[in-house]
This record gives sequence, structure tokens and C-alpha cells, in this order.
Amino acid sequence: MKKLVLLRHGESVWNKENRFTGWTDVDLSERGVNEAREAGKVMKENGFFFDLAYTSYLKRAIKTLNLALEEMDQMWIPVKKSWRLNEKHYGNLQGLNKAEMASKFGDEQVLIWRRSYDVPPMPVADNDERNPRLDARYRGVDPELIPLTESLKETVERMVPYWEGEIRESLKTNEQVLVAAHGNSLRAVIKYLKNISDQDIVTLNLPTGIPYVFEFDDQLNLQKDYFLGDEETIKKLMEEVANQGKAKK
Amino acid sequence: MKKLVLLRHGESVWNKENRFTGWTDVDLSERGVNEAREAGKVMKENGFFFDLAYTSYLKRAIKTLNLALEEMDQMWIPVKKSWRLNEKHYGNLQGLNKAEMASKFGDEQVLIWRRSYDVPPMPVADNDERNPRLDARYRGVDPELIPLTESLKETVERMVPYWEGEIRESLKTNEQVLVAAHGNSLRAVIKYLKNISDQDIVTLNLPTGIPYVFEFDDQLNLQKDYFLGDEETIKKLMEEVANQGKAKK
Repeated sequence: MKKLVLLRHGESVWNKENRFTGWTDVDLSERGVNEAREAGKVMKENGFFFDLAYTSYLKRAIKTLNLALEEMDQMWIPVKKSWRLNEKHYGNLQGLNKAEMASKFGDEQVLIWRRSYDVPPMPVADNDERNPRLDARYRGVDPELIPLTESLKETVERMVPYWEGEIRESLKTNEQVLVAAHGNSLRAVIKYLKNISDQDIVTLNLPTGIPYVFEFDDQLNLQKDYFLGDEETIKKLMEEVANQGKAKK
Repeated sequence: MKKLVLLRHGESVWNKENRFTGWTDVDLSERGVNEAREAGKVMKENGFFFDLAYTSYLKRAIKTLNLALEEMDQMWIPVKKSWRLNEKHYGNLQGLNKAEMASKFGDEQVLIWRRSYDVPPMPVADNDERNPRLDARYRGVDPELIPLTESLKETVERMVPYWEGEIRESLKTNEQVLVAAHGNSLRAVIKYLKNISDQDIVTLNLPTGIPYVFEFDDQLNLQKDYFLGDEETIKKLMEEVANQGKAKK
């Protein structure tokens, strides 16, 4: 059985403040660091031995990966980074908290942004310091490809080529692959793998710091998927994710 | 000017115990962690912005790199790892401290191992747990290439193809490259770049945690080399390294 493990980064320092982070490069909180180490421990206990790992250009995902690999004593494996694994770009909302958003744009509009699959927030301006085209780390990327805002649909669309051209390809020649990334870039992978509808993927919430395992046969047909960890916690998580997937068809 | 920076990892937990480490995968000490962060700070202060970085398969070098890049806010750059950047393999001496060595092999023999360019320690046995051919991390490497012991000469010989085929090549298309590695694998690079004799390279000691900068013109001709950091400390280091290079021709 080939195995792909998706790992959503632990809590960031903006989580507590309830701010939209997106491509803002905020650090893990102390709790987030512990979540990452815990994820490494549980993968080690379950005998995982990765051939390679993928992560984004954002430090909360990179550090989650580094800390988990350190716990597993697998820091030496090859790691590939791509901006395509970044979190959804939240455009003009990045840095705002919910109260600020509601007072600035109204409750109804905020609800649309949070619940729709294909309505992006307003883009950041060209001269906005949040414009990733001004950030040296993306200088190697075609500026046309770099978003100034994204709907979840657009996040899925820029993620899928990386899935198909890179991660899926690597599973053909490797046995175990780890992807440490973000809520929405991982939603893109899960949507693709489990063929989840546009409506349902919006409400599917991946738990942070819990390794999510996908098993494939040699032809890369998905056989089963499950979370790793304490049995009771995991049972609850699986039910939650299943119910999210089913809700409001 | 193209820039290559060599960074020798900070103190490891075996340094205090004065043990031969070699390919043993020991962790950084707390002091080593601080040295790595300090190296990152000084490179940041000096405006370094790396296109990519190289490191070994050993965690004391990988963590040194990760910590330095974290301080520089450059965790997102591509990182390539190679066993060819590993420390010299110390064969049967790995894990022993100087007192144990002297009582086991005699003072004279120990002096030969420590001062000669081309006399390796005795190899580890095939079934020795220190045999890297038994370590899953090297399963992707041709076993013929994996040493059971090494003289400095042999370390240089396995390092040079990686320098010529990979790191030097990458400098042709990049401006700034960082290599975080070990005393002896970095000696190999310095020997090559500065054309240091077999005799002199044995006594050249690279300081830990001090970035060592090499500047090249566009044709990759070496223009100058210098350490980064506090002026007084650096002046002393430069003199030491120069004297080491000159000693006993």
C-alpha cells in the first residue's frame, strides 16, 4: 500500500487573534509547535518512514514539517517547497479580524466570503505591502500566476497542477509521501482525491496537527483514508469530517 | 559578485564529551543552537539573501541550516541534502573519546590518525551498528560508495564530485548559495577553492558557527574570502586560519 499523509499546520500566533492569515507569513504559536511535535510522534509510533515531503513557502507549514520530521528522526529526507501549497490568498481581508471585517464590509458580505466556493474577497492593491508580487520569495514565479486574492475554487485550480504534475507523480515511484500545508491547499487535495462537490468542500474542516492518511494501491486508486491518533478523538474527527461532507446537499 | 557561504555546524552534544562523531547522528547542544541562530543573525545583518542552500544528511548540520534560515526569514528557499556533505567517517573510532582511543590503540597510532591526510582509522565491521550501509537513510545510495571509514583524502574525493557537479553548477545560475555542513566536508571545499596542499589542509580548522564567505566573479574565479562577524574576533580567526594554512611546509 502506498501512503500519502496530509498534515495541516498547528496553531499560528494569529489564530488567537482570529485574524485572516492567508499568505501572511506568521509563526506557529507555542501550542502550534507542540501540535507539530505530537504529529511527528504519532507518525513515528505508527511506523511511518517517508521517502520525501512537500510543504509551502510559509513558515508555519515549513516549521510544522521540520518539527514533525525531527520527532521522527527523518530530517534528512528530501523536502520540496512550492507556493502552490500556500494557504488560500485572502486578498484585502488578510490581517483583519472578524469584528473588523464585519464593521468594514457588513455581516452579510462576510458570510458570502466565508461560505461560497467561488466568490473571492477583494484583491489587494498593486502597491499594497500584502501584494505577494512585491515579495522577493515569489520572484521565481510567473507574476501572472501569483494571486492578489482567491476564492477556494481558485486555490483548488492552482493546487491541482502541482498535485497531478508533482505529488501524484512522486507517489508512482515512492511508497510514503508527507504533505505539510494549510487548511485550504489541503482541501484542494482532499476534494480531488475523494471527489467532493464544490458545495461540500467549503464546510469540510481538516483538524490541525492530526495526520490524515490516504492509502492507495499500486495504480494509485484510493483504498481508504483515516486519521492517526487517540482512538476516541479520531472517531469524533472522522464523524465530523463525514458529516461536513454530507451537509446540505 | 557571486557569493558562496560555508557554515560549519555549532557545538554538538558529543563535543563536550570529546567523542569522535563522524556519521553518528548526534544533536546540537544548546550552545550549538545559539551558534546557529547567531550565524543567521549576522548573515541577515550583512544583507545575505540566498537562492538556495545545501546541507548533509546529519541533523546537526540540517538544524544549523534551519535555525539560521529562520533567523534570516528565508526558510522557504530550496534546500538540497546530500550524504556527500556528511562529516568524515571515523570508522572504528566513532563514539570513542580520546582517553578510550589512547588506551585502546596507543598514543602514537592516535596521533597518526589525527595528523595524516591519507591514513584512515580501521573500518567498522559489516555487522557493526555504526555501518552506514545498515542505515535506511542511505538506502538510495550505491553501497559501493558508502564508506566504512575515511581518511581526509577520501572525504575530499567523495565531496569534490558534488562540488563540481552540483554546488559549483548552481553558482553559475544563482547569486548566493549557502552550504551548512561539517569540519571535514567543508575542508574539502576550501582545499579545492584555495588550492591548499594535502599537508596544510589537515591543520586548517574552520571555526564553528561563523559564516565563511567566498566571492566569485561571473566566471567563478575566486576574488576574496572572509569571515562574517565581530571585527576583532574575525581578525583573530583570519590570522589563525592563515597561519594554519602556512604551517610546516
